[in-house]
Amino acid sequence: MRASQLLIATLKEVPADAEIVSHQLMLRAGMIRRLTSGLYSWLPIGLRTLRKVERIVREEMDRAGAQEVLMPSVQPAELWQESGRWDQYGDLLLRIRDRHERDYCYGPTHEEVITDLVRKELSSYKQLPSNFYQIQTKFRDETRPRFGVMRSREFIMKDAYSFDVDQAGLQRSYEAMYDAYMRIFTRLGLNFRAVEADNGDIGGSGSHEFQVLADSGEDAVIFSTSSDYAANIEKAEALPAPLGEAPERPAPQEELRLVDTPDARTIAALVEQHGLPIDKTLKTLMVHAAQGGLIALLVRGDHELNEIKAENLAEVATPLTMATEAEIRAAVGAGPGSLGPVGLDMPVIVDRSVALMSDFGAGANVDGKHYFGINWERDVALPKVADLRNVVEGDPSPDGQGTLSIARGIEVGHVFQLGQKYSQAMNATVLDDSGKAAKLWMGCYGIGITRIVAAAIEQNHDDAGIIWPNAIAPFEVVLVPMNAHKSQRVRETAERLYGELKAQGIDVLLDDRDTRPGVKFADQELIGIPHRVVIGDRGLDNGELEYKGRRDNDNTMIAADSLVDFLRERLQG
Amino acid sequence: MRASQLLIATLKEVPADAEIVSHQLMLRAGMIRRLTSGLYSWLPIGLRTLRKVERIVREEMDRAGAQEVLMPSVQPAELWQESGRWDQYGDLLLRIRDRHERDYCYGPTHEEVITDLVRKELSSYKQLPSNFYQIQTKFRDETRPRFGVMRSREFIMKDAYSFDVDQAGLQRSYEAMYDAYMRIFTRLGLNFRAVEADNGDIGGSGSHEFQVLADSGEDAVIFSTSSDYAANIEKAEALPAPLGEAPERPAPQEELRLVDTPDARTIAALVEQHGLPIDKTLKTLMVHAAQGGLIALLVRGDHELNEIKAENLAEVATPLTMATEAEIRAAVGAGPGSLGPVGLDMPVIVDRSVALMSDFGAGANVDGKHYFGINWERDVALPKVADLRNVVEGDPSPDGQGTLSIARGIEVGHVFQLGQKYSQAMNATVLDDSGKAAKLWMGCYGIGITRIVAAAIEQNHDDAGIIWPNAIAPFEVVLVPMNAHKSQRVRETAERLYGELKAQGIDVLLDDRDTRPGVKFADQELIGIPHRVVIGDRGLDNGELEYKGRRDNDNTMIAADSLVDFLRERLQG
Repeated sequence: MRASQLLIATLKEVPADAEIVSHQLMLRAGMIRRLTSGLYSWLPIGLRTLRKVERIVREEMDRAGAQEVLMPSVQPAELWQESGRWDQYGDLLLRIRDRHERDYCYGPTHEEVITDLVRKELSSYKQLPSNFYQIQTKFRDETRPRFGVMRSREFIMKDAYSFDVDQAGLQRSYEAMYDAYMRIFTRLGLNFRAVEADNGDIGGSGSHEFQVLADSGEDAVIFSTSSDYAANIEKAEALPAPLGEAPERPAPQEELRLVDTPDARTIAALVEQHGLPIDKTLKTLMVHAAQGGLIALLVRGDHELNEIKAENLAEVATPLTMATEAEIRAAVGAGPGSLGPVGLDMPVIVDRSVALMSDFGAGANVDGKHYFGINWERDVALPKVADLRNVVEGDPSPDGQGTLSIARGIEVGHVFQLGQKYSQAMNATVLDDSGKAAKLWMGCYGIGITRIVAAAIEQNHDDAGIIWPNAIAPFEVVLVPMNAHKSQRVRETAERLYGELKAQGIDVLLDDRDTRPGVKFADQELIGIPHRVVIGDRGLDNGELEYKGRRDNDNTMIAADSLVDFLRERLQG
Repeated sequence: MRASQLLIATLKEVPADAEIVSHQLMLRAGMIRRLTSGLYSWLPIGLRTLRKVERIVREEMDRAGAQEVLMPSVQPAELWQESGRWDQYGDLLLRIRDRHERDYCYGPTHEEVITDLVRKELSSYKQLPSNFYQIQTKFRDETRPRFGVMRSREFIMKDAYSFDVDQAGLQRSYEAMYDAYMRIFTRLGLNFRAVEADNGDIGGSGSHEFQVLADSGEDAVIFSTSSDYAANIEKAEALPAPLGEAPERPAPQEELRLVDTPDARTIAALVEQHGLPIDKTLKTLMVHAAQGGLIALLVRGDHELNEIKAENLAEVATPLTMATEAEIRAAVGAGPGSLGPVGLDMPVIVDRSVALMSDFGAGANVDGKHYFGINWERDVALPKVADLRNVVEGDPSPDGQGTLSIARGIEVGHVFQLGQKYSQAMNATVLDDSGKAAKLWMGCYGIGITRIVAAAIEQNHDDAGIIWPNAIAPFEVVLVPMNAHKSQRVRETAERLYGELKAQGIDVLLDDRDTRPGVKFADQELIGIPHRVVIGDRGLDNGELEYKGRRDNDNTMIAADSLVDFLRERLQG
């Protein structure tokens, strides 16, 4: 493409309302423009990258045996009512009423539509496994859209849905998608982790998120310093001790004593006012129990309750509901700042770390009083033990190798075993090999196409602008003729090289604009073209061109004759 | 692709609610499925064709220098209020309200959004001409969606918008798009006509429709039997006489006479009861005049008023509004069945054919009475003459070559000179070469991507199913191994040929399903794959394969060695 025929709408200034670097750079590089809150137009340069992302995703989905379909973006309310999500989904669902007063939504996802299609079109286990995907515009009416296309309202997703006759089949379909996702994000040139995620009541390793690592990421990615283990914060298991080592509780050293703590209603106050080490304190959290009434969940003072882990316990009501102060007072006779296990008359579950504590302090279930020097079994029976907390930096890795570290990530993909949730609600069956109707086992697999573009920038940029991986750069190479208006040799060489590179299938931009070289270089670096070749008379005197990779500090002179081979090598790298 | 891994959802029966053949065949071939009224899912086989249409359109738009963008499908009401279309567009516009009670629509078209983008991004004539296009899902809330994807509510359009600094530039941009459209529809393998269409007050040859010729088409396509001239019915000029021949009015033969016609309130009754030839009768139609009051428009009894031509006259109010009976009685003193030019006290415009009539009959502007034997100038002055009627079969062609014929067409594309309509309403300017702000000249160019698929089927089918043009067939070739479970040679040959054809870039389906050959052949013909190659032991004994083109009656034996060349030749044809 010729730059003179391309809308290059670069901006010098950082737009005021863009908070994160990818949003700033996408605006500054002329990739996108805001239409209104959460709605963006993709300009030619941005769309080129978006299409390259789409193509890689499509190729790998096809390779994995998934079939592309295209479902309507507008979906009738009836199907969402059948699955129960019309009421559950809340305001994120953009609801629409047509001229005949019928209700629809702008689909944020397509489980209902594909399940409806599959229950009508597939009738036998012989037609399984089947996996259908689409690359399509979706809408989520975010309360506060922000960060450009990272959290926009209208966005492009690849969503796929697999169908199997049994759980073993679902597991195979899931693994095929997991492998396809690994190939996709590798081909995109991103630094990413596949992290285990929670999948509620399905259990097993039934959900993974694909996280692009970037400091600005909203998610915490937990990973082992010594192995491939990775999980999100909801899922990462907190071990009581390194795998293989027996967790050990120190023997009691102190006496149990009741202490007046009139001003210590928080952990911080307790530590500050009474000199208790924070890892000798307890948080006693009361939530609604599954059987009615309350249940107490205990984590160490320096730990955080993991709400997903708590919710997954049979004893705890779903969704997790914290008790109000009134409910606590009614049950215990004390406020939330003075709770503890000693003398507590209600079901209790303690975190694994809590079970290993000795000589610790906790509320006495009387306002303004704590027990110090508590020891399990001696002062109070050890209740049920479970994994209740978020892991922290330095925890032992659940796979027994090394310790855990925490990084920031941007979720760009998610694979999930839905099980029979939708086939149950919508009665989607096929005949199995014994001729009986079997509810389908379903998986769903999403990739945020538009979000990938932003995530790639968060991970790959410098002060001058974007630094694209080759695979998704809007152009792989830019050719810059110097003083083209004066030098016929430069003009002709540029045109010849432009033709040669195009003929070799290299995606090349010829910067033929009537602008100063400094302006061109700045634009090209802002836009992030990975390879730059300058054609000037000085170099041509020696048959040479000036090459600079986007991450290079200096130019390299290369023989004009070898340009194609030179670039080909760099583009494969 | 292997058929065993493809959703082949063919139907034997014609779906009851599908009225036209393309809708029936798209359902029967498993290309689409209805989600609800006017909303369709594209199944894998249908989507393959859709994507091939998209690719051809994209390639030719790029070749023509247009730049691809992607604007949001959801558009804020403010822009439509600025252009005035929020109120004008009516119920076809699907209106949406978000969680913050702000108004939007699901875009049926993007003139406002692109004009807003361009007024912000382009500042100088040096950035022009510019042409931006997108291929995108749109929505029109049709009162009565029908004919499958031919008139669905959600559909895919290619819409392009050109911007120029002056009208001459617009004319050039328009011609470039016209040429691109000619290439697109030619490459798609369709039998089509580019027909002149009306473009209201812009004038000139500023609008063309691209019509796929098919008997089921909703539009009338007017074309010359001897030249390239083609126009739609609104636009086609009705000449008074063949070009170059002087139109001549026969001399009067009859006396003017007032006749009692108590029961003749229609042309048909007049002809039947009084023996008047229909081409000696007049229709006198009264409409609102631009200056207020009424104006009479006269066409011959056997002709139809062309409302667009009438509306384009300066004397006639816009939009064209027929007078009510009450208005007519108040102005004339007689009812609509007794009107005529003799003694009529109001402005009158007559069609060119009417100006050539003599000895004709018309109402006397008195209920129950007509004048017969009327002659212009002798009995009443000849009023202003204009082209007011639809052409009819056999009319002389406006280009002077041959006569006009009428065919049926399906509109699949439209190019249109908008002029300054939107740049005026939305104040979109650039600086011209004298440094002054100049309103942009705009053109818009649409192609109905989803509709093309249906139109191609309307034009190309037989009793067995669809007959795809090579360029947009879901597969170019199908390989059918016979008795593959018994013959290792057949299996191996099929696999080898499948690999060879794929390696040659031929889009081939290997029908490896465990089904009877008759079922496979019926599916393949229904789906419309243009080339079929059967691999059987009998043929292989002679090193031969059995070939059948979709339109062929008989098989042809071809040497297995020459298959690639043989197909290559047929695929180019």
